[in-house]
Amino acid sequence: MNNLIITQKEGYAIVQMNRGKVNAINHKMVNELREVFTSLEKNNTVQGVILTGQPHYFSAGLDLIELFQYNKEQITAFFNDFGSLYLELVQFKKPFISAITGHSPAGGCVLAVTSDNRYMAEGEKYVIGLNEVAVNIQISQNLTEIYAFWMGDGLASRYILEGKLLNGNEALKAGLVDDLVPFEQVLERAEKQMRKYLKADQEILVNTKQKLRKHLLEKLDLKPGNSLKEASELWWKPEIRAKMKAYVESFTNKKK
Amino acid sequence: MNNLIITQKEGYAIVQMNRGKVNAINHKMVNELREVFTSLEKNNTVQGVILTGQPHYFSAGLDLIELFQYNKEQITAFFNDFGSLYLELVQFKKPFISAITGHSPAGGCVLAVTSDNRYMAEGEKYVIGLNEVAVNIQISQNLTEIYAFWMGDGLASRYILEGKLLNGNEALKAGLVDDLVPFEQVLERAEKQMRKYLKADQEILVNTKQKLRKHLLEKLDLKPGNSLKEASELWWKPEIRAKMKAYVESFTNKKK
Amino acid sequence: MNNLIITQKEGYAIVQMNRGKVNAINHKMVNELREVFTSLEKNNTVQGVILTGQPHYFSAGLDLIELFQYNKEQITAFFNDFGSLYLELVQFKKPFISAITGHSPAGGCVLAVTSDNRYMAEGEKYVIGLNEVAVNIQISQNLTEIYAFWMGDGLASRYILEGKLLNGNEALKAGLVDDLVPFEQVLERAEKQMRKYLKADQEILVNTKQKLRKHLLEKLDLKPGNSLKEASELWWKPEIRAKMKAYVESFTNKKK
Repeated sequence: MNNLIITQKEGYAIVQMNRGKVNAINHKMVNELREVFTSLEKNNTVQGVILTGQPHYFSAGLDLIELFQYNKEQITAFFNDFGSLYLELVQFKKPFISAITGHSPAGGCVLAVTSDNRYMAEGEKYVIGLNEVAVNIQISQNLTEIYAFWMGDGLASRYILEGKLLNGNEALKAGLVDDLVPFEQVLERAEKQMRKYLKADQEILVNTKQKLRKHLLEKLDLKPGNSLKEASELWWKPEIRAKMKAYVESFTNKKK
Repeated sequence: MNNLIITQKEGYAIVQMNRGKVNAINHKMVNELREVFTSLEKNNTVQGVILTGQPHYFSAGLDLIELFQYNKEQITAFFNDFGSLYLELVQFKKPFISAITGHSPAGGCVLAVTSDNRYMAEGEKYVIGLNEVAVNIQISQNLTEIYAFWMGDGLASRYILEGKLLNGNEALKAGLVDDLVPFEQVLERAEKQMRKYLKADQEILVNTKQKLRKHLLEKLDLKPGNSLKEASELWWKPEIRAKMKAYVESFTNKKK
Repeated sequence: MNNLIITQKEGYAIVQMNRGKVNAINHKMVNELREVFTSLEKNNTVQGVILTGQPHYFSAGLDLIELFQYNKEQITAFFNDFGSLYLELVQFKKPFISAITGHSPAGGCVLAVTSDNRYMAEGEKYVIGLNEVAVNIQISQNLTEIYAFWMGDGLASRYILEGKLLNGNEALKAGLVDDLVPFEQVLERAEKQMRKYLKADQEILVNTKQKLRKHLLEKLDLKPGNSLKEASELWWKPEIRAKMKAYVESFTNKKK
């Protein structure tokens, strides 16, 4: 695990994404997340998981600078695995909380929305949201489902079509996050909720979570290849490729 | 009817639960509620029903002190009939309003959520909610559906998994109740809305209610035995039985 | 087009309803709207459409004064075409925004809820909503679906059963409108959002809108004759006919 730090606590685990300052998601990080969550689901000493990030960045989303270099085969493989990660996290049986320590756009938001609770760093500057339309990526049907699950069809439709990034107050009002706390207390807040979950009968908790997600899971295409086919195809559309290039270059320049 | 007081008004009926100070629900009360609502649905002089409780308590939920004494057969029979009551109330064809005169946790909330409108006593001290997880009872799929109907999947999921009891302001914000009024005006508020319903064409009203609940009813398992099988089985799990015993004892001591 | 004014802008079109001061909807206006939207959907120079009304009235809804004169055949034909218009607007592939310049009850609201965004004139006096129950018209299953789409099952159920008209603030809180602006800026606000849509990749936008409405469309009966059968039948129920007569007369007197 080069990009993840796992901490075992009394009854639960904390997974901290640790890839540079902004936790941009590349193929390697996707694979590590899949491996860790699969292992934690089987681990009987772990009754729940908290996913967290770096100060100011939960995750900036897909590492477009690296992905821009991938060839067709690599992009298809990446989207397949990212789609699989999403499906595994949505179906994760145990309580799962996101401690959103800062920005969480696009791919960062994809990870966060799969969890049962989301505590986010307060402050106008941090944003979260499925802004795929604004960055010229085709959102999958599977992703639209979970956004509608958390905020209702109406807001999900408007915000996805507008490619909107929400600040903390907007996210709280929309039901996308549960609570806002100072960023240095986000993890603590998540742990407080996790300890509440640990007091409940774990069999009842797991049964209950399954019931609550029953219809959501029925709506998902469990083959990530189907769900992300359009995204990998439109990735190579010349106009989109050109926009992506400009975006990557502006981003690269900003980093200098 | 030992536990219910029925008042016939001009065009509608008021059903007041009247079992002690807190309206704890035992098997006898379930049977009486089923009988009364079945009869009111057929009664052509009644175009709508208001369900109400005692000052400070709509209903404290299941009578765990009595239920704790039931044997396996009795628990199974109880859950079957309680599940049937729930299904009959959800499918009740005429306008149905809950005048929530105070606390309404767990089983009390189950009754309230089946109605078309909920007016609740204002004040921080009164609580309402499906807090089954917190009291070690397995919630049924059927119940999760109606919570999601009123407050959306997102809030329903969070609140059920957390076993949360909501105060009036939280319930209002979540859409679990329609309005908060001083507790001595709750029934009056419900009657005001009932009189509005009586002004509409009753055929259109009944048709419309059926359309509004179409998808909800499609999601329900209409055999209460299926829906509450897990609940009756987990009732006897030793760890849960022990917790229940401690709960019942603490409650019994508090009453002394 | 006697009742519509079409303005072609850079990349989008504005359709202004222009039938008297209140834009009451008769059969002729329904036919014109169907014709215009069908033509705009095929027009490659148009990537989105804004529908707007007159100062103070987006549309007052069905022209009950004219409809009251229709015979049985004419009412059936009217409801068929109005149902078809609704279905065509819900399925309109391109971004579609309503600039709600004032009142928008019943049939006016039907048009507005089919669009992707709704910007409404601010001020307590303007109302919007599916108040069919209050005006003795049988709402169709198809219409209940889209109300629930925008505001969730709970609020949609309560407001439709109560026949409620919402003022701007209520509509904003319910998610029925996106934003409130002074009435002379409503169109400008809609155009601002349309220009944002035009910046996105149009293929991604059309794909995304389709995904967002997938489940809504699955719930709709695509044969308007089925969906509005009850409405045309109950139209002739003697008690409803009498109420309608009184309503039409009171309205006619008010106009004098």
